Amino acid sequence: MNPPAAKHQLRARRLGLDTHAEAVIFLDHDSPVCRAEGFAAHGRVLLTAGKRFVIATLYKTMGDLVAKGEAALSEAAWQRLGLTEGDKIEISHPDPLASMSLVRARVYGHTLASNSFDAIVRDIAQGRYSNLEIAAFLTACAAKPLSSDEVLSLTRAMVNAGERLAWDRDIVVDKHSVGGLPGNRTTPIVVSIVTALGLTMPKTSSRAITSPAGTADTMEVLAPVALDPEAMHRVVEQEGGCIAWGGAVRLSPADDILIRIERALDIDTEGQMIASVLSKKIAAGATHLVLDMPVGETAKVRSQAAAEALSRGLIHVAEAFGIKAHVLVGDGSQPIGRGIGPVLEALDILSVLQNKPDAPDDLRQRGTALAGVLLELSGRAAAGQGVELATETLTNGGAWRKFQRICIAQGGLREPKIAPYREPILARASGRLMRIDNRKLAKLAKLAGAPEAKAAGLELYQRLDDEIRAGEPLCMLYAEAPGELAYALNYAEAQSDIFGISA
Amino acid sequence: MNPPAAKHQLRARRLGLDTHAEAVIFLDHDSPVCRAEGFAAHGRVLLTAGKRFVIATLYKTMGDLVAKGEAALSEAAWQRLGLTEGDKIEISHPDPLASMSLVRARVYGHTLASNSFDAIVRDIAQGRYSNLEIAAFLTACAAKPLSSDEVLSLTRAMVNAGERLAWDRDIVVDKHSVGGLPGNRTTPIVVSIVTALGLTMPKTSSRAITSPAGTADTMEVLAPVALDPEAMHRVVEQEGGCIAWGGAVRLSPADDILIRIERALDIDTEGQMIASVLSKKIAAGATHLVLDMPVGETAKVRSQAAAEALSRGLIHVAEAFGIKAHVLVGDGSQPIGRGIGPVLEALDILSVLQNKPDAPDDLRQRGTALAGVLLELSGRAAAGQGVELATETLTNGGAWRKFQRICIAQGGLREPKIAPYREPILARASGRLMRIDNRKLAKLAKLAGAPEAKAAGLELYQRLDDEIRAGEPLCMLYAEAPGELAYALNYAEAQSDIFGISA
Repeated sequence: MNPPAAKHQLRARRLGLDTHAEAVIFLDHDSPVCRAEGFAAHGRVLLTAGKRFVIATLYKTMGDLVAKGEAALSEAAWQRLGLTEGDKIEISHPDPLASMSLVRARVYGHTLASNSFDAIVRDIAQGRYSNLEIAAFLTACAAKPLSSDEVLSLTRAMVNAGERLAWDRDIVVDKHSVGGLPGNRTTPIVVSIVTALGLTMPKTSSRAITSPAGTADTMEVLAPVALDPEAMHRVVEQEGGCIAWGGAVRLSPADDILIRIERALDIDTEGQMIASVLSKKIAAGATHLVLDMPVGETAKVRSQAAAEALSRGLIHVAEAFGIKAHVLVGDGSQPIGRGIGPVLEALDILSVLQNKPDAPDDLRQRGTALAGVLLELSGRAAAGQGVELATETLTNGGAWRKFQRICIAQGGLREPKIAPYREPILARASGRLMRIDNRKLAKLAKLAGAPEAKAAGLELYQRLDDEIRAGEPLCMLYAEAPGELAYALNYAEAQSDIFGISA
Repeated sequence: MNPPAAKHQLRARRLGLDTHAEAVIFLDHDSPVCRAEGFAAHGRVLLTAGKRFVIATLYKTMGDLVAKGEAALSEAAWQRLGLTEGDKIEISHPDPLASMSLVRARVYGHTLASNSFDAIVRDIAQGRYSNLEIAAFLTACAAKPLSSDEVLSLTRAMVNAGERLAWDRDIVVDKHSVGGLPGNRTTPIVVSIVTALGLTMPKTSSRAITSPAGTADTMEVLAPVALDPEAMHRVVEQEGGCIAWGGAVRLSPADDILIRIERALDIDTEGQMIASVLSKKIAAGATHLVLDMPVGETAKVRSQAAAEALSRGLIHVAEAFGIKAHVLVGDGSQPIGRGIGPVLEALDILSVLQNKPDAPDDLRQRGTALAGVLLELSGRAAAGQGVELATETLTNGGAWRKFQRICIAQGGLREPKIAPYREPILARASGRLMRIDNRKLAKLAKLAGAPEAKAAGLELYQRLDDEIRAGEPLCMLYAEAPGELAYALNYAEAQSDIFGISA
C-alpha cells in the first residue's frame, strides 16, 4: 500500500492569473488526485512546497487547459509557495480553519473578544481565507455594527498581523485623506513643508484601487516609490521624511485584502473604515496625525453629520493607541487641483512647490492647511500659527528644496512626460457651473487610461460658480493612445451630467 | 472616431473551467479593452453574443494563457452565451445591479418586502450575482434572521424564479429528507409503495454535493434519471410516479446556486433551509408532503428542540402555500441501511423491495413509515393504518413490481456492478459499539471514490449496541481503483473515533 503523500505530488505550472490575494489552483477534473482525495470544486486545499504552504481554492477544468498530474496556480499561490517552473507541490486537505467558527459566531450575533479578532485577522493576512469567507466576515461586521471595543480589537489585530515601523523620535507625524475626491494630491506638499521645518514624516501611500490615481502612482511620476523598509529608513534618516509606496512595507496587510472585497461588494462601515485607516498609521509608527475629510454629495463622506460621527470614532480609537489626531473637514464638492491622473496631478504639485503664478490655489490652500494642523499638533507652531508658518515655508522655497532632496534620496527626481493625445470637452450651454460629479469625472479619467497610462487623465479648467459660455472648454482630456481618447470622449458625450450648468 | 463597440469585440475561447454558476472571463492584463474600459480585476463585466448576454467576473492574466483580443471563458459563461469556438463576443460595463442595493439595505438592518426578494432571487437565478455578492446576501440573512414573512417571500421568490410542474391531479405527494445521514435511501422504496397504491408521486432528487451519494446518483445505478419535463410527464402519466434527477427540470434554480455558497461558508439558517426545501416542493407541484428528519449528534439536526423549531417553521410555510405537510422525526445516530455509496445503497434498496431475508430492517422500517405518513395524509389509508398498508404492499411484491415498471419507463432497469477492490476495517478492541460518527463515515466513503466511482463506498456490518470482538470486521470498504482503496484505508487507520467501542 503506497503512502498517500507519494500519490499527491503534482507538477506546478504558473498560470499568470491575477486573483489578488486569493490563492487558486486548477486541476483536471479527472485528475486522480481529485477523485482519491474527494476534493470538491470550490473546496479549499492545502498546497505544500518544501517548508512553504498556502491554502488555495480549487477549480476543476475539462479539456486541455491543465494536464493530468499538473497543478496550474494563480500568481498569489505561485508567489507564496516561492516556486520555479516545474517544481513539485503536494496537495492535501487543510485542517479546518478554526477562526472561521469565530466568524460564524459573529454571523449568528455574538460579539467577538479581542483574541478572536487576532485569530481571524492573522488568518486573513496569511491568505487562509477564501474571498467568500472574507465577504461573510465583512458582511457580519456590517449587519451587526462593530461595537466600540470591537473596533479597538480589530484595529489592534490588523496592526499585529503585519510589520511595524519604529522611529527613534518622540514625534512622528502622519496624514491620511478619507478619499473619494479626484485630485486632492496634497501629500507631497505636506511632507515637504513639515520636514523642511524639522518634523519627521515617513509617509507611505497606496496605489489606486478604483480611482484614476493613488498618491503612490502620482509620486512615482516624480521619483521611485517602491522603497523597502531599509531604504525607507535611510531616506527618513537623511531627510526627515519620504513619500513611499506602502505596498513594499507590509503595514496592516489584512487591510489591503479586506478593502478589495469591501469595494467589490460596495459595503463599508464606519468601524471597518476606522480600523483600516488607523491600523496603517499605528503600524507606521505615527504619534501625531491629521485626517483630511472632504465632505460633499459625490465624495466618500456625504454630510456634515456623517463627518462628525466618523471624526469622533477616528479620534477615539487614535487616542486609545496614543496618537494625537485632528480631523480637518473640508469642501468635497469639486476636485482639488486641476489635474486628475498621475502626471497631471504631479504637474499641479510641482507648480505649487515651485510657487508658479498659475499654481492651483485650492491645492496650495489645502496643503498648507493640513501642514498647519501638523505643525500645531506637534508643537512646532503655536496655536493659530501653523498655516502661516506652512505658507511661508512654501513661498520661501524651503518646501521645494526639501522635496527635491527627498526625491533624490528616493532614487532621483524625474521629469513628467505630457500625453501626446488631447481633446477638450466643451460646454454645451452658457450659464453658471453649479455641480461637478466627482465620481463621473474620475471615471472619465480612467477611461482615458489613468492610472496605468500615467500621462492620461484630464485637466479641469473651470470651478464651481464660474460663469461659462457655450463652446468654452470645461476640461482637457489627455491620453497615451488615440483609441483611449476616443473612448473617454464618447463617454463624456453620453453623460450629460458630469458638469451641471444652469442658465 | 471609432464607435467603442467595434473596439470591444473579442474572440471567445472555451476554457473548460468549472466555476459552477459563476460566469468568469479571463483577459490579458495588457489587453487594449482592459485599459480602454478601465475594467478592474474582479470587476463585473457584461458579455454579449447576439441576443444572449451574461454578467461575468473578470480576471486578468499575464503571460501566454490568454492572447490579446481573446476572451477565455468559464463553462458557465460559455454555456449561457451559447457559443461555438471562435465566435465573437462583446464586452462592456453592465448596468449597476439594482437588486444589490436591496441586499445592502438588508445588510444595514432593513427588512425586505416581497418584491425585493423577487428582484434579488431573479437576478441570482439569472447568474447576475457574483459569488461574493451571494455570500453577502446569505450572511445578511443569517446575521439578522429572516422574519416569518421574509421566509414566505423568499420561498415564493425562489419558486417564481424557476420552472413549475403542473399535474392534472388533486393529490400529488412528495417527500424530502433533511439530510446529513449517510445511506437512508428511502425514496425509491416510498415512491414504489405509494404509486403501487395509486397515488401520484413525481419525485425529483438531487445529486451529491458534499455527500458520498445523492438519491439521483443511487437511482442512476438502477435506471436513467436525467429526464426532461416531457419524459417525466410521460413516466408519471404511465406509472403514477418517477424517481428523476431534479437538475434537468430547473425547479427553484436559485436554490442550487445558494446552496453551494452556503456549503462553502458552512453558514445555514432555519429560514434559508425552509425556503430551500419548500421552494423545490412547491415548484414540483406537491400537495401533500412528508419530511424525514433524522436527529442525532452527527446528523444535520442535532437536538429534539432544534427538530421541533424547524418542523414548526416548515409546516407553517408549507400550509401558507396550501401544502399539507408532516415531519417524521427519527433516529439519526447511525446510518440507515448498510450501504454508503451509489451501488451499495442501490443493493440495499433492491433487497428491501425484493423482500430478501437479509434486507436491512431499519431501511425497510423507515421506508414504510414514510410511505405510511403519505398514505394517511392523502386519505389513501385511515389514520393509524398507513404503515400496515405500506408494509403489506412491500411484502406482497406490489412495490417491487411497480419499481421495475418505473425503471423501464425511465429507460430500463440496470444491474448494479460490484466494485473489484475491497478490504475490511477491523475492530481494534472488544466491547459494545457506542457511537458512529456519520460525518467521518461519509468522508471515508468519499475517499474510497464515491459518488464519482459509483461502486465505491462502504458496507456497514455493525449497528449501535452490538457487542464486538477485537479483529471482527466493522465494515467493508469498496473501491474501483487500488489507490483509492489504499487512501481510504489510510484515513480509517488515522481516525480512531469513526467507531466508538467501549469495553
